[in-house]
Amino acid sequence: MSSPLKDPLIRVPFAKLHDLLYRIFSRHGCSDTVAAILATNCTNAQRDGAHSHGVFRIPGYVSTLASGWVDGQAVAQVSDRAAAFVQVDAQGGFAQPALAAARDLLVHKARNAGIAVLAIHNSHHFAALWPDVEPFAEEGLIALSVVNSMTCVVPHGARRPLFGTNPIAFAAPCAGQSPIVFDMATSAMAHGDVQIAAREGRALPDQVGVDAAGDPSVDPQAILDGGALLPFGGHKGSALSMMVELLAAGLTGGHFSWEFDWSGHPGAKTPWTGQLIIVIDPGKAEGDRFAQRSRGLLEQMRAAGVSRLPGERRFRERAISAREGVSVGEAQWHSLERLLE
Amino acid sequence: MSSPLKDPLIRVPFAKLHDLLYRIFSRHGCSDTVAAILATNCTNAQRDGAHSHGVFRIPGYVSTLASGWVDGQAVAQVSDRAAAFVQVDAQGGFAQPALAAARDLLVHKARNAGIAVLAIHNSHHFAALWPDVEPFAEEGLIALSVVNSMTCVVPHGARRPLFGTNPIAFAAPCAGQSPIVFDMATSAMAHGDVQIAAREGRALPDQVGVDAAGDPSVDPQAILDGGALLPFGGHKGSALSMMVELLAAGLTGGHFSWEFDWSGHPGAKTPWTGQLIIVIDPGKAEGDRFAQRSRGLLEQMRAAGVSRLPGERRFRERAISAREGVSVGEAQWHSLERLLE
Repeated sequence: MSSPLKDPLIRVPFAKLHDLLYRIFSRHGCSDTVAAILATNCTNAQRDGAHSHGVFRIPGYVSTLASGWVDGQAVAQVSDRAAAFVQVDAQGGFAQPALAAARDLLVHKARNAGIAVLAIHNSHHFAALWPDVEPFAEEGLIALSVVNSMTCVVPHGARRPLFGTNPIAFAAPCAGQSPIVFDMATSAMAHGDVQIAAREGRALPDQVGVDAAGDPSVDPQAILDGGALLPFGGHKGSALSMMVELLAAGLTGGHFSWEFDWSGHPGAKTPWTGQLIIVIDPGKAEGDRFAQRSRGLLEQMRAAGVSRLPGERRFRERAISAREGVSVGEAQWHSLERLLE
Repeated sequence: MSSPLKDPLIRVPFAKLHDLLYRIFSRHGCSDTVAAILATNCTNAQRDGAHSHGVFRIPGYVSTLASGWVDGQAVAQVSDRAAAFVQVDAQGGFAQPALAAARDLLVHKARNAGIAVLAIHNSHHFAALWPDVEPFAEEGLIALSVVNSMTCVVPHGARRPLFGTNPIAFAAPCAGQSPIVFDMATSAMAHGDVQIAAREGRALPDQVGVDAAGDPSVDPQAILDGGALLPFGGHKGSALSMMVELLAAGLTGGHFSWEFDWSGHPGAKTPWTGQLIIVIDPGKAEGDRFAQRSRGLLEQMRAAGVSRLPGERRFRERAISAREGVSVGEAQWHSLERLLE
């Protein structure tokens, strides 16, 4: 699949892209429920200009489903563990349908107890993390999520990779405007962005990764071919990545990033791990005041000279997509259509 | 007060140092309860070799108490907000007594509900953050805490400081050994470490701070004299620092790092903000298995070549202090004694 940057862009209506992706997921073994959830997730990412987690991911989803590594028909099992604790066994399926199955219970608990946690295990997460937290903020709740992935990051001070790219996502409501949302890999760069750079033949910045010999490299292909990424921010990013392993896998019962063996499933791309989501009701301490305070914080950041606030670029792209349609490469679109044959 | 590194070290019994600090806090206006809690906190930091938050801080505590900025007699008011939500008004006193007042209720809620949150506001935090989370891990619980501080960090992309050093601390139990604990400023360096470097006349690494003109500087004194720190890890550390403002101040009802004015209290050093602590009972999902899993993670990290695990240096120093006494500079010790005159 060609890169969106070398491929002339076309604009397609959201519903048309969603329908195409829904049919691709269905054609390749997903249940109606799973196909609809993944199509929405992926169309939303493309709509927001988050191309490393948009339709760029579809061939990986398809090859993974074809390999038998993930169960596109899985029905998640939700367990009500305590007043503020929900556990979900994704049954070897994707994480997003598992979250969807537990979401109402999680929100109910958070509103009652003030905070609640959702522990997902036996799950595959191949998407951006912000779509999992943003909707909570749209309901006035604060959400924090972590997911571990697959061994490709060298812990600070280590000689070989161990951790995944292990992102952290956060969302908080903001009065009178879009929520404050960020989603960051704890690696120096997200894996999808390395893949895109490799396809475009672009060199990476320093301090992003190492080659197969463990030496620093700015060649994205060398990082993908037996090399590895580094954590962002040295020992601090590395400690956060460790925390993500403990919360997303250790606490949930999911696999650590190094614990699964997909060698018997050629084409498999999705990490079989776990995910944690913590949801807080700010109304328990501050009533309606929290969203005003978060707006005040953004105003102070702007006044201090911050020109790009977290999540802002995505919301701007979203507005453009709503007017003009979702941007997709022309060749990319045809490649997607061929996945229905 | 001279730096511990230029001053010949002596070893004093833990109880003797604790007693001296207790008397200093009492002498300078703290209630018995507050003096005992702060003395323990500060002696523990010194014992663990965390010198930037050990007795080095005592003159700052004393000048702050003398200025009338903090209430050393404050009695925190605990409010039971929901099944998993505790709020504490520290009443303008220190954060540690506020945590102590709410701790039993917080642990009770976390064990019942699976997760619980403590929101502290109207509080002053002038200590390391790991002492607040480590004890939860010793009881088999996972703890995460954030505290905001005072404007001294330039948000990524901004022209002037806004955020505090805003640390994040995390602790998790580990089978058969000390808990996994880390505590990191979201600034490129902790403020206390900049102060120590200034007193020792040491240059700082690149990318730590800017001078009063906003230009990059490796001079710790220039950073302290109207300059500012940078976040660690560029835009990612900056987003985490923003998150700390939202959780520690926005959510709790405490002041943001830029919202308090201590100009009428010369000598005041303690930020008047808020603190959030989230405590999770891993037994709700994984029974006793979590601590085994975190031990397995540490073993994998060692096997990958990590020579210094998070918290390890502190536990090693603690063991030495238990055998030989707590290390304090000789001149520093005498300076402390003079605070009783």
